[in-house]
Amino acid sequence: MNQAANAVDTLCINTIRTLAMDAVQKANSGHPGTPMGLAPVGYTLWQRFLRYHPEHPDWPNRDRFVLSVGHASMLLYSLLHLAGVVEIDEHGKRCGNPAISLEDIKQFRQMGSKTPGHPEYRMTTGVETTTGPLGQGCANSVGMAMAERWLARRFNRDAQVLFDYDVYTLCGDGDMMEGISSEAASLAGHLKLANLCWIYDNNTISIEGHTELAFSEDVLKRFQAYGWHTLHVTDANDLQALSDALQAFKANTGAPTLIVVDSVIGYGSPHKHNTAAAHGEPLGEDEIRLTKAAYGWPEDSSFLIPDEARTALRDGLMARARPLYEQWAQALSQLEQDEPGLADEWRRMRAGEMPGHWQDRVPTFASDAKGVASRASGGEVLNAFAQQIPWLLGGSADLSPSTKTNLTFEGAGRFSADDYSGRNLHFGIREHAMGAIANGMALSYLRPYTSTFLVFSDYMKPPIRLAAIMELPVVFVFTHDSIGVGEDGPTHQPIEHLSQLRATPGLLTLRPGDANETLEAWKIALAQTHRPSCMVLSRQNLPTLDRTKYAAASGARRGAYVLAGAENPEIILMATGSEVSLAVEAYEQLKTDGVAARVVSMPSWELFEEQDRAYRDSVLPPAVKARVVVEQAGPLGWDRYVGQTGAKVVMNSFGASAPLAKLQTKFGFTLENVVKLAKEQIQHHHPG
Amino acid sequence: MNQAANAVDTLCINTIRTLAMDAVQKANSGHPGTPMGLAPVGYTLWQRFLRYHPEHPDWPNRDRFVLSVGHASMLLYSLLHLAGVVEIDEHGKRCGNPAISLEDIKQFRQMGSKTPGHPEYRMTTGVETTTGPLGQGCANSVGMAMAERWLARRFNRDAQVLFDYDVYTLCGDGDMMEGISSEAASLAGHLKLANLCWIYDNNTISIEGHTELAFSEDVLKRFQAYGWHTLHVTDANDLQALSDALQAFKANTGAPTLIVVDSVIGYGSPHKHNTAAAHGEPLGEDEIRLTKAAYGWPEDSSFLIPDEARTALRDGLMARARPLYEQWAQALSQLEQDEPGLADEWRRMRAGEMPGHWQDRVPTFASDAKGVASRASGGEVLNAFAQQIPWLLGGSADLSPSTKTNLTFEGAGRFSADDYSGRNLHFGIREHAMGAIANGMALSYLRPYTSTFLVFSDYMKPPIRLAAIMELPVVFVFTHDSIGVGEDGPTHQPIEHLSQLRATPGLLTLRPGDANETLEAWKIALAQTHRPSCMVLSRQNLPTLDRTKYAAASGARRGAYVLAGAENPEIILMATGSEVSLAVEAYEQLKTDGVAARVVSMPSWELFEEQDRAYRDSVLPPAVKARVVVEQAGPLGWDRYVGQTGAKVVMNSFGASAPLAKLQTKFGFTLENVVKLAKEQIQHHHPG
Repeated sequence: MNQAANAVDTLCINTIRTLAMDAVQKANSGHPGTPMGLAPVGYTLWQRFLRYHPEHPDWPNRDRFVLSVGHASMLLYSLLHLAGVVEIDEHGKRCGNPAISLEDIKQFRQMGSKTPGHPEYRMTTGVETTTGPLGQGCANSVGMAMAERWLARRFNRDAQVLFDYDVYTLCGDGDMMEGISSEAASLAGHLKLANLCWIYDNNTISIEGHTELAFSEDVLKRFQAYGWHTLHVTDANDLQALSDALQAFKANTGAPTLIVVDSVIGYGSPHKHNTAAAHGEPLGEDEIRLTKAAYGWPEDSSFLIPDEARTALRDGLMARARPLYEQWAQALSQLEQDEPGLADEWRRMRAGEMPGHWQDRVPTFASDAKGVASRASGGEVLNAFAQQIPWLLGGSADLSPSTKTNLTFEGAGRFSADDYSGRNLHFGIREHAMGAIANGMALSYLRPYTSTFLVFSDYMKPPIRLAAIMELPVVFVFTHDSIGVGEDGPTHQPIEHLSQLRATPGLLTLRPGDANETLEAWKIALAQTHRPSCMVLSRQNLPTLDRTKYAAASGARRGAYVLAGAENPEIILMATGSEVSLAVEAYEQLKTDGVAARVVSMPSWELFEEQDRAYRDSVLPPAVKARVVVEQAGPLGWDRYVGQTGAKVVMNSFGASAPLAKLQTKFGFTLENVVKLAKEQIQHHHPG
Repeated sequence: MNQAANAVDTLCINTIRTLAMDAVQKANSGHPGTPMGLAPVGYTLWQRFLRYHPEHPDWPNRDRFVLSVGHASMLLYSLLHLAGVVEIDEHGKRCGNPAISLEDIKQFRQMGSKTPGHPEYRMTTGVETTTGPLGQGCANSVGMAMAERWLARRFNRDAQVLFDYDVYTLCGDGDMMEGISSEAASLAGHLKLANLCWIYDNNTISIEGHTELAFSEDVLKRFQAYGWHTLHVTDANDLQALSDALQAFKANTGAPTLIVVDSVIGYGSPHKHNTAAAHGEPLGEDEIRLTKAAYGWPEDSSFLIPDEARTALRDGLMARARPLYEQWAQALSQLEQDEPGLADEWRRMRAGEMPGHWQDRVPTFASDAKGVASRASGGEVLNAFAQQIPWLLGGSADLSPSTKTNLTFEGAGRFSADDYSGRNLHFGIREHAMGAIANGMALSYLRPYTSTFLVFSDYMKPPIRLAAIMELPVVFVFTHDSIGVGEDGPTHQPIEHLSQLRATPGLLTLRPGDANETLEAWKIALAQTHRPSCMVLSRQNLPTLDRTKYAAASGARRGAYVLAGAENPEIILMATGSEVSLAVEAYEQLKTDGVAARVVSMPSWELFEEQDRAYRDSVLPPAVKARVVVEQAGPLGWDRYVGQTGAKVVMNSFGASAPLAKLQTKFGFTLENVVKLAKEQIQHHHPG
């Protein structure tokens, strides 16, 4: 076929451009320039290459289209509209609406619309991931591509192929400059992800002006250094060249592909093309008229979709997708027939369900005064669950010997370019990309976990936030969770990080107090379907509490629970994680001293806040004002539980480099200090 | 001279190696392998190239040595010891001690020692920056190199050179993999920082094992793509090759230099060399004996420094530094004579003082109901101060048209490879590197500021934390500070970020409520000498309050102050930033309704907590329990001020994409809601 632009192609491309211009103008807010420049790229990809069934946008083997340049959301919305993609509701049902109607486009950026400023996963069918913060979509797409390699190894058979999708990512200058993309690209090259294609919109314009203000590297060469296959299309409007490049991507098998496309931001706008002014604000009514004239478009039109443009994109998609979709459905039937167990596994993965037996073989931890670090018990628990849940997989940013998250059972394997079936992922020292790659995997039916030290949660906060926004049940494991790190000192001792995680909406933060609470915490995290969890674990040993003497660890499911103590206590001692055992010690000492104390373990504020008032008041009776909290972290937020008069044994500064015992003494995490403060509290609230 | 290793060189190198082995063994904690591998590199650089005066370690024109691989701290401590560097106290005085004594080395990683696990700025003379979190040192070094270019342009004259220092950075695999280093390297190449030399320790071993697990890119080619000059030394023990490479760096003028050095981690250890086991734990007594034997070292020795090794390093440094230091002192004298004004400027910069007149020409803002966005008033204030403080400079991660931080007055200029005198920095879309580069500049006498949107503070948390640890008075400007962002939606609307910043020890968070508070906030931030500030500013217009009717904005200096209202109020309304005017409106409405309210503006929790109890109680009288806080951010921490019964008009979820007015209604930031809650509070606390 002749792949240069014909009249219908041009009509479609200009439809995409003018819809973006009109929608941004109507909203009086948004980004018209990139959709105008990239319309031919989006159109060519969707019309000629993407394997995507508009009536089955949840087809598991669809090619993924990731708009890492999320501000260009109107490009995606127009493509979804012109493709006639149908809406799928949260239960996976077709509800009879289009994913994006013309009315939706007119409601661009309005309250409750399906067309928010940046594309939002779960809000709009066809949006594969929430994008906007630059670089995240790029790294998500690496996770999606890795997921495909893994799924293919698990589910494909000689006779049938369930997974062979490709992942296409539209990137901009910001994506190229953000460090996360460098991390993700380096790993993608290392893993030889031949199913991954990044298309870089080289429009040479950023918000401050020409990219030459800050960006003069040789991007092609840089990606070659990462081991990528690289191509250069020097004119975004040359559909033949674009098609050739995309064809070359599909023909390439040994590496991911970068296609650099030279484009013109605000293409067609007489006064604003190739300027920063086209980036982030409406063109203005006058300029829109002039631009439409330049396209040969009716100047007075608004949200015009010519009839001929209504069908071309959809027809192109359907012609490819219909037979592929049918083949796929047959392959799935075949799998159900040949390997019903595996088919059931796939059904559960797709539905976000766990295997029926997933909690059957968990370890239990006997009372032990010496105890075990929660990173170690966590690793044991993780291995037990992973043996029951074949699609639970993950790894570390080069710290697995320390975070203890390696899967050590037979067959767990290592995920590598030589063997994509492995379940141990080596992310390298790339925390930021690790988080976003895990998000991409969670968007692709897998249950990923990541691990690093808690202090380095700082390096991966943006993807943690996006996991929370997207409601992805990723488990972020963070060990070495306090000054318990010891000699490595302040740079490695988290202080504010628990507050940061607790402050993030939609995120579950779990800091278990001993091995049995760690088991509960993993159960809680894995039972989530719409919420990411942070598993906050100790470096140092924690005594395993005697649960015949103290309450069962299952109390952790309610976020906080009474571990021991009087029905009507004089004082409440609260603690989390590694400080629970210190609070228990203090409780025992106070008991010996004739003081009626209660000790509350509080592994998750979020879960506790979800309990009803009666339960919360039963754990923390409002009448008991004498309270002490013990936590090796900053104080922010504890006033809620200890009140304005309670005592806080917390970290009010950065830590120090020294052995742990010395640090505990220096910062007041001693039995003597906790008991003293408890008695002072009682004295304060019940003087005399 | 023959630059291959002679007997003394070898003795010095093995001294460095064995000190690291012994110190780690004694501490029973630490990282011996990298100092063992890199000892010849550190030695060659210091002995043969570094322009550094051991008796004047605070010489402003010293070459900077940045140990980005901070875990290899023993390498630096050994170099400082062997060089005989003297200690300089916090007031810049020589106190007669060595920077690092042999006893200090024996106290490695112990409480209060000068030899913490990772090198800490301000704690140990000769430590140029706190390192440990990987990649940070690399980006710091770019800031130091940029600072040198700027200082040279400002202070050098044809006849005299005050600044021509070089910056050397030791990097590891982690630095190469972390995204921040990619960002920093790309910018360094763009800016053609020929005074910057990164030495990459290519030991092929990371914590999880061989780097081939996760890292197979062509690092040399990648840096060539960034525009760097690249060199490869294939044997870290080849002092001739190292010298040639360092000589080539010094001869190169158009670009920064990367020297890849192939080394062996744990060099000399028969069983642990070239393994991950050599990285992060003591070698063990037996292995240490075997390793010493391999070096031809007395096996039973401990912390041995042969006499011949005591002088070689120091002599090499002194021979170079003495004449250079004298020349420099003469140049400074000449400057004092020729341009006393400029000399005084330099004296103030060096002392961390402001110009005497720095607050003389500030704008004032008249009462204005329509008002002005605090990003805009902030930009105006910044420009006013920058005109008085020539070494106040900064920029944005490609958002200056939005953050309004551009310096627009004549002569401000743009910092570029063609003109290093400019004060507007274009960081590109590289928030993470921006933060760490600013830290590097603050370590080099400058007063830097950065800017981006508040939500993207997530991308730069690690350097913000390090600025706080290092007590650097960087100003981090964050605009678009709430759902006030509007249509860009949840990915661009900060929620948890104020909590994150407030949770970080040693950091000042300022969220001014109108233009005059913004002026105060900038005054506060610029007056800091040992604390970084976050300036949190609005996108949307804020009414400029009538300060004849309400209290003066100078109250902001105490963190929180009574803006208006009754001496004995029935209700306290608290707010920060863009919500202050809403609280004032509610106050006026309540007054009209006959309710005695008080409105408290609370731009900085940290400053408020520093006030004495009497002041705090005067602002928030403990007897007044009826309280409402209004802040477009998450609730964490507000219980401290509103108590357990107060009302919080805050964000309990992520935001949404819609025009601001709709969002304010949806999330309860309306006059009606605040007034209603205030009345409910009064009813609750004083029923009937």
